[in-house]
Amino acid sequence: MGRLSSFYFIVATILLSSAKTVMHKVFPIPQEFEEGEDILYIDPCLFEIAHNQNFAPIDITPILTIYKSRIFGEKLNQCPSPSNNSLSPKHILNIHISSPISEYFPSKIESTDESYSLEITQDSTTIKASQYSGLVHALETFSRLIEPSKKIKNHYEIENIPITLQDSPRFAYRGIMIDTSRHFLQVSTLMRVIDGMVMAKMSVLHWHIVDDDSFPMQSLSYPTLTNYAAFSSSQIYNSTQIQNLVKYANIRAIRIIPEFDNPGHVRAIGLSPTFLPLVTCFNKQWEYQMPNGPLIYGGPPTGALDPSNSQTYTFIQGIFQDLNAYFPDSYVHLGGDEVLFYCWSSVPAIVNFMKNNNIPSYSALTNYYINRARGVLTAVNSTKTAIYWLNEATFYLQVKPTDILEFWGFTSNLTQLATLYPNNKIIVATGDRYYLDCGMGNKYGGESWCDPFHTWWEIYILEPTDYLSADQILGGEVTMFAELVNDFVLDWKIWPRAAAMAQRYWNQNLPLNLTGLVSSLNALVNTMNSQGIGAGPIDSNFCNLNTNLCFGSP
Amino acid sequence: MGRLSSFYFIVATILLSSAKTVMHKVFPIPQEFEEGEDILYIDPCLFEIAHNQNFAPIDITPILTIYKSRIFGEKLNQCPSPSNNSLSPKHILNIHISSPISEYFPSKIESTDESYSLEITQDSTTIKASQYSGLVHALETFSRLIEPSKKIKNHYEIENIPITLQDSPRFAYRGIMIDTSRHFLQVSTLMRVIDGMVMAKMSVLHWHIVDDDSFPMQSLSYPTLTNYAAFSSSQIYNSTQIQNLVKYANIRAIRIIPEFDNPGHVRAIGLSPTFLPLVTCFNKQWEYQMPNGPLIYGGPPTGALDPSNSQTYTFIQGIFQDLNAYFPDSYVHLGGDEVLFYCWSSVPAIVNFMKNNNIPSYSALTNYYINRARGVLTAVNSTKTAIYWLNEATFYLQVKPTDILEFWGFTSNLTQLATLYPNNKIIVATGDRYYLDCGMGNKYGGESWCDPFHTWWEIYILEPTDYLSADQILGGEVTMFAELVNDFVLDWKIWPRAAAMAQRYWNQNLPLNLTGLVSSLNALVNTMNSQGIGAGPIDSNFCNLNTNLCFGSP
Repeated sequence: MGRLSSFYFIVATILLSSAKTVMHKVFPIPQEFEEGEDILYIDPCLFEIAHNQNFAPIDITPILTIYKSRIFGEKLNQCPSPSNNSLSPKHILNIHISSPISEYFPSKIESTDESYSLEITQDSTTIKASQYSGLVHALETFSRLIEPSKKIKNHYEIENIPITLQDSPRFAYRGIMIDTSRHFLQVSTLMRVIDGMVMAKMSVLHWHIVDDDSFPMQSLSYPTLTNYAAFSSSQIYNSTQIQNLVKYANIRAIRIIPEFDNPGHVRAIGLSPTFLPLVTCFNKQWEYQMPNGPLIYGGPPTGALDPSNSQTYTFIQGIFQDLNAYFPDSYVHLGGDEVLFYCWSSVPAIVNFMKNNNIPSYSALTNYYINRARGVLTAVNSTKTAIYWLNEATFYLQVKPTDILEFWGFTSNLTQLATLYPNNKIIVATGDRYYLDCGMGNKYGGESWCDPFHTWWEIYILEPTDYLSADQILGGEVTMFAELVNDFVLDWKIWPRAAAMAQRYWNQNLPLNLTGLVSSLNALVNTMNSQGIGAGPIDSNFCNLNTNLCFGSP
Repeated sequence: MGRLSSFYFIVATILLSSAKTVMHKVFPIPQEFEEGEDILYIDPCLFEIAHNQNFAPIDITPILTIYKSRIFGEKLNQCPSPSNNSLSPKHILNIHISSPISEYFPSKIESTDESYSLEITQDSTTIKASQYSGLVHALETFSRLIEPSKKIKNHYEIENIPITLQDSPRFAYRGIMIDTSRHFLQVSTLMRVIDGMVMAKMSVLHWHIVDDDSFPMQSLSYPTLTNYAAFSSSQIYNSTQIQNLVKYANIRAIRIIPEFDNPGHVRAIGLSPTFLPLVTCFNKQWEYQMPNGPLIYGGPPTGALDPSNSQTYTFIQGIFQDLNAYFPDSYVHLGGDEVLFYCWSSVPAIVNFMKNNNIPSYSALTNYYINRARGVLTAVNSTKTAIYWLNEATFYLQVKPTDILEFWGFTSNLTQLATLYPNNKIIVATGDRYYLDCGMGNKYGGESWCDPFHTWWEIYILEPTDYLSADQILGGEVTMFAELVNDFVLDWKIWPRAAAMAQRYWNQNLPLNLTGLVSSLNALVNTMNSQGIGAGPIDSNFCNLNTNLCFGSP
């Protein structure tokens, strides 16, 4: 059936009955589905998964195990063998992948086919997908439709079958940026972020791993760097942990894109005596006026690499080699934001370098650096695609058509961005909408630069095609900078707001009323909580239980 | 030594050395202390507590056990007996209570003497207090000064001894209000709140236990009420849980003051067919305009009890009897806020009642109700003191001089409050400073009524004596209304901001520089985190580790 008619069906369901449908249970809400009125009962001990091929070199056993245990939990360990006297017949989940899976993803994000179909009948369940991501999304959707039976002990049930469902995302890049430099985050915390991303059908974890404050990544090229630049010996991600995390994410159909922000935001590198000569502004102190309080120091400045020193390019080559070794993904985020020109103008050698090389301005010097640094990346691995931060202040940045731009400026300036960079794919990460750390104060207890706080709704209602043509949008990303984040508060600051963005980039075609949207988002929060992810409520428990009485139309 | 000179000493310590002092470790920062330059090493197996009397009927063993395990953890279970070859002598903590303890607190909050002294030398540690609260505070301070030794394996150390410390709070009431009606909170979550309050030396947990959304308190008078008015059978506080929680709090020197908000905020009561006739506005629906979205229903209105129905007073007598049975404390919060007059004017019986009794206005009717309800409370227990909410909109409220007023209006109106109610003790809970749920959206994803978010600093800098005379201030309270709070996010929304208020009401006499304040608040956050309380950071980890470089004076 057509997409439009399917929504009439959904709306009708909501208005005519309070029965929970797919729309109340699965978030992001699938593109198209039809439902019946029967109930399927499943005995976990008689539930089997079958698939049509061997997927080697990719092993799908881990993801199947993950979902079986998420759905049935301890029940699976309580199965008699052979299972007897069951009240329901055997149920088989059939998996069909149209083409052999030789990798978790194609190298290009846009080439990833995340589409899947799901058909649930009394006899069996069928999942069809063409790539690994589609399989994972299908399993996630299935896990949200099945629940412990209210009628039959030790059984599970799926309401409103038969269910036929086709689903696929609007945009390929649905990301979260995490920052492990301002506060070190435990690996288990990062895994919890990934667990939540799978539930929200997100595709990219952008790891802002190092910055001015600390450099917690164990470097293969410079093994002693973290001795100086990490907060402590216990606040370092070693190579095993990083590689395991990448694997953990890939099995869940999530790419990890690492960021090495340069030439700015590198102060921590200067903590190493070896590399201190490459870092300008290392000892530069900010000042900050406490509201109704004293003038105080401002903590670490954003140090900048010396673009006139050839050693700088030798140094970053080593870091690029580290990233290449750790992160198989074909994308690397090279930062490029907030280069403080006064850090450069204060160094005579840099001023002379500009004179001798006819570099007329500091913006031109930035482009000189960016261009030379990209050359270094290409030398390390020519297949990598570079991503850069961009905002209104850096519209002078000269990039290649193949580069991807992550825009952190004001949403209202997205149109200007499109005009200036018509050939570049864009990731929407606007500071006035998608920054998750706004409105809760800054690291001194004053106001954050990007006040106010953005609620799940304010994040959800931003429609990117109001500013950009769909074909220029690679996707959207919420950013979680970590000045005020630790292992305890990260979950709530991310969830469910990140999922509200994911919904927008997955499926904008929603019915006019809010009940389904809020119900399914509540269902997502409940699922996250049940899995130990500390998502916060989006409404009162009364509204969660009586969504029509809160979000229905008068 | 005098208070003033002690602060010169502290400032000097900070400016002249980076050594951590009492000021960097204990929050709220103690009133007076002197420190030496030696280090005391303690072998947990040779640590003993001695006290000068039997405290029956109060048993101090539980609180001593709590602190021993908080300080030494598993180490205590690894002690050889008898302990031999220790590198340090036996250390005895002597406890002297000047008067026999016959209760956890005196009935009046103002009569509570929380003062204590602490003396730590190479030979022994001495705690002196006159009441139970002082003992608990002294143990808390001691626990923050002792840490695992950096030098001697399996030992602990206390820096800068000898330490002589005298401490006592400025104001008796340092409270947190929690709301278990908009979201049910697990008992373990409430216990975690109490654990944090002990660390911040707070004195009162104000339990806003019921409201419009749900009535989760098992009633002894009306055993079936929660069948209708609780969210579910698993979201009820039964009498054992309530009594255990009160005991849990009292052992930690914290009072629990229950609130039954009336005559407004009682809609949930109407869910019971028996009591529905007593609740006006039960089915009244709000409407809410989603920003850039549709008009929607607004969820439950704030129902109001019918003041003209004598059954109403019979009903509340039963609830007062429940509170009297569950909560031994001599204070009861009776609410009194947000009585919607249109709920009353829409009922002919109420309009007639006013005519027949010459009640000229709805504000007068409110006073009629409040006065009659207080009479019911007195009949149940004449020793109880009533606390009422008050803001600019309810300055018509007529109260008795013995009543306590909790002001939730604008801080700027505190002076007017003092003029209108010169004889009443005041709890400062101003909505523009002490409400912890502001600035993070409302239950629809729109803006909260009390935007913006209040940071720890904005909460800390509010000096109540700028608006009220010290003798009229009972204390301060931060409020955590729970529309958007669940068991996962409560900790961060409360901590460490509640502690920033507690510091202000404990000790305003701080040195001018911020380093000590921020260091000790960071120490509190670290202690909370180590005990599983999800407090959030107040600054970046760099500033936590290098506080002078962030909060020192340029």
